[in-house]
Amino acid sequence: MKSERVETGKVGIIGAGQLGRMLALAGYPLGLQFAMLDPNPAACGGQVAPLTVASFDDRQALAELAQKVDLVTFEFENVPVDALEFLAGRVEVFPRPAVLETAQDRLREKECFQQLAIPTPAYRPVSAKQELQEAAAELGLPAVLKTRRLGYDGKGQVVLRQEADLAAAWDSLGGSALILESFVPFEREVSQVAVRGRDGEMVFYPLAENTHREGILHLSLARPGDPLQAQAEDYSRRIMEHFDYVGVMAFEFFQTDTGLVANEIAPRVHNSGHWTIEGTETSQFANHLRAILGWPLGSTEPVGQAAMLNFIGELPKAAELLQHPGLHLHAYGKSAAPGRKVGHATLRLPAAADLPAALRRLTDSLGSN
Amino acid sequence: MKSERVETGKVGIIGAGQLGRMLALAGYPLGLQFAMLDPNPAACGGQVAPLTVASFDDRQALAELAQKVDLVTFEFENVPVDALEFLAGRVEVFPRPAVLETAQDRLREKECFQQLAIPTPAYRPVSAKQELQEAAAELGLPAVLKTRRLGYDGKGQVVLRQEADLAAAWDSLGGSALILESFVPFEREVSQVAVRGRDGEMVFYPLAENTHREGILHLSLARPGDPLQAQAEDYSRRIMEHFDYVGVMAFEFFQTDTGLVANEIAPRVHNSGHWTIEGTETSQFANHLRAILGWPLGSTEPVGQAAMLNFIGELPKAAELLQHPGLHLHAYGKSAAPGRKVGHATLRLPAAADLPAALRRLTDSLGSN
Repeated sequence: MKSERVETGKVGIIGAGQLGRMLALAGYPLGLQFAMLDPNPAACGGQVAPLTVASFDDRQALAELAQKVDLVTFEFENVPVDALEFLAGRVEVFPRPAVLETAQDRLREKECFQQLAIPTPAYRPVSAKQELQEAAAELGLPAVLKTRRLGYDGKGQVVLRQEADLAAAWDSLGGSALILESFVPFEREVSQVAVRGRDGEMVFYPLAENTHREGILHLSLARPGDPLQAQAEDYSRRIMEHFDYVGVMAFEFFQTDTGLVANEIAPRVHNSGHWTIEGTETSQFANHLRAILGWPLGSTEPVGQAAMLNFIGELPKAAELLQHPGLHLHAYGKSAAPGRKVGHATLRLPAAADLPAALRRLTDSLGSN
Repeated sequence: MKSERVETGKVGIIGAGQLGRMLALAGYPLGLQFAMLDPNPAACGGQVAPLTVASFDDRQALAELAQKVDLVTFEFENVPVDALEFLAGRVEVFPRPAVLETAQDRLREKECFQQLAIPTPAYRPVSAKQELQEAAAELGLPAVLKTRRLGYDGKGQVVLRQEADLAAAWDSLGGSALILESFVPFEREVSQVAVRGRDGEMVFYPLAENTHREGILHLSLARPGDPLQAQAEDYSRRIMEHFDYVGVMAFEFFQTDTGLVANEIAPRVHNSGHWTIEGTETSQFANHLRAILGWPLGSTEPVGQAAMLNFIGELPKAAELLQHPGLHLHAYGKSAAPGRKVGHATLRLPAAADLPAALRRLTDSLGSN
């Protein structure tokens, strides 16, 4: 494949949330400049880079963005594919937009996993109430009913525990195309953040072990040397090569008795990779930029032992957080709101053995145990 | 002393060069916002934060800046003291402007060192040609004739090696108030970057060993555990306490047979502290902000072993630099110009023993030995 290099330049980012913000903060030291586009005038990326406020399918705004940048990436996977295709007719876009047709649709995503011989939960597409009953009978309960599109942070899904749950679930989600997934009895949720360059070079971060609360990522623990690392890398590699992917991609897996089972992919930098800012030699944000620019990828070697804690709803006081040794704060510059990701902290300590107690002191101090 | 805390807020920075730029990049993750003021419309800080283009003594622009920020700091020590005093009548300014009256004048600086029993080179103020001859006779040659004010990066100084050099030196610098300093036969130049909080808490970075080229800093090697650390901290502490200083301060010393001899102070973040971004737990930039905000200071513990190389004139190609393992690039977003600091790289490696060879490979690849 072609391997060109952008010597320096201006990067357009579709979406200007915290992921875009952290991409820009990682890119300035590389000599890059940025231009962001987001429909939300208060998008926090706008505090650190010029922001065009426009809908993701505003063709005029997209054309103007394409004019002023050397290449475009995105920080949000629910951008309309045709908007990115429109951009790609004017300027290079990485990751290439086609991956979104799969990543935006849980059914196509599962089909892709199967095609690549990557284990998935059993699943059935559901587009009618009758189909839901048949699928539930086939897969058994518990199972999870999800919208095929636009789900995130636990939104757009309902767990079905008994026959009686089906009617309410249908009432709640039945207006959309759905998928029923067998509930996987998992030991852990882990994610693999990986990077693929324009020349096909790949690097893989250590696995992160993730804990969610109310459907939102709460805690990621870096797990260098995890016994499942090789399997996660193998599956991730298959997917990135399948799409001739360029950039950072995140892969969420369930760990079961029989090994890893794929849950979903995110074709972008990912919350479960935020610990890489301090916890590895090169952050996921810097590596995403290096990949899309055709620059050499950076080392994913761990630096100390890291864990990341999300702040949801409201940011604790910075001056109190910063009393914790080894704590690195990342405030996103957002106002408080229930369920909103407003920041995170990475605890990085030289000795792995000290991390659990430090993490306990931190969560105790936050009253969130 | 009073110890107030700014919970969050907007920080004004007088000067928008690379130091202001790196302060902002360190401050965004802390949830801060920035407003900069600089007479140069192309000042590189303006790429990462809103920039008011105005002269440093434009009272209206200063008053408007004071209006929109919660506190003010500066990244450049040659800001007119009365401009900062004017600001300080409207908003908190840290470091307090009075320190600049000393830091801007090499004679007052030397007198301050002497008052605090910190060794300095022998020196004489010089304001007439006759005085220069007398001073040279008293101190002996070689000696260095310097302007008392506005010198930096080797500018405003001439080395006198023989009697015959005096006339040309006087012709070159005689229009300004001068100081003649005895030439110190030093083994090394080292600098101490230190931080003092609003409550008087102090932290000290490991010493850096500095090499200059044509008067401009070329290389800083971090020297954790250096035998002169305690003496450097002692001298630095005396100066910071003397000024009731708040923020980061840099102290340059010559190492001689009899110990450290003070060269100069810089009441700001400093080029010889750039290695702290990757090379310590908390960068000098983050710690400066934490100090002026009244937040807890961060650890200055080393992370790996670090060395910083300045890029002067022109930036090497990023894609080539990034092939070096352990290299962290900091491009300042400036156009090339002879003698201009356009970026730096920090090499950080886990093992100190590997650093010299890695540094040699880097400088060889740059053709700068």
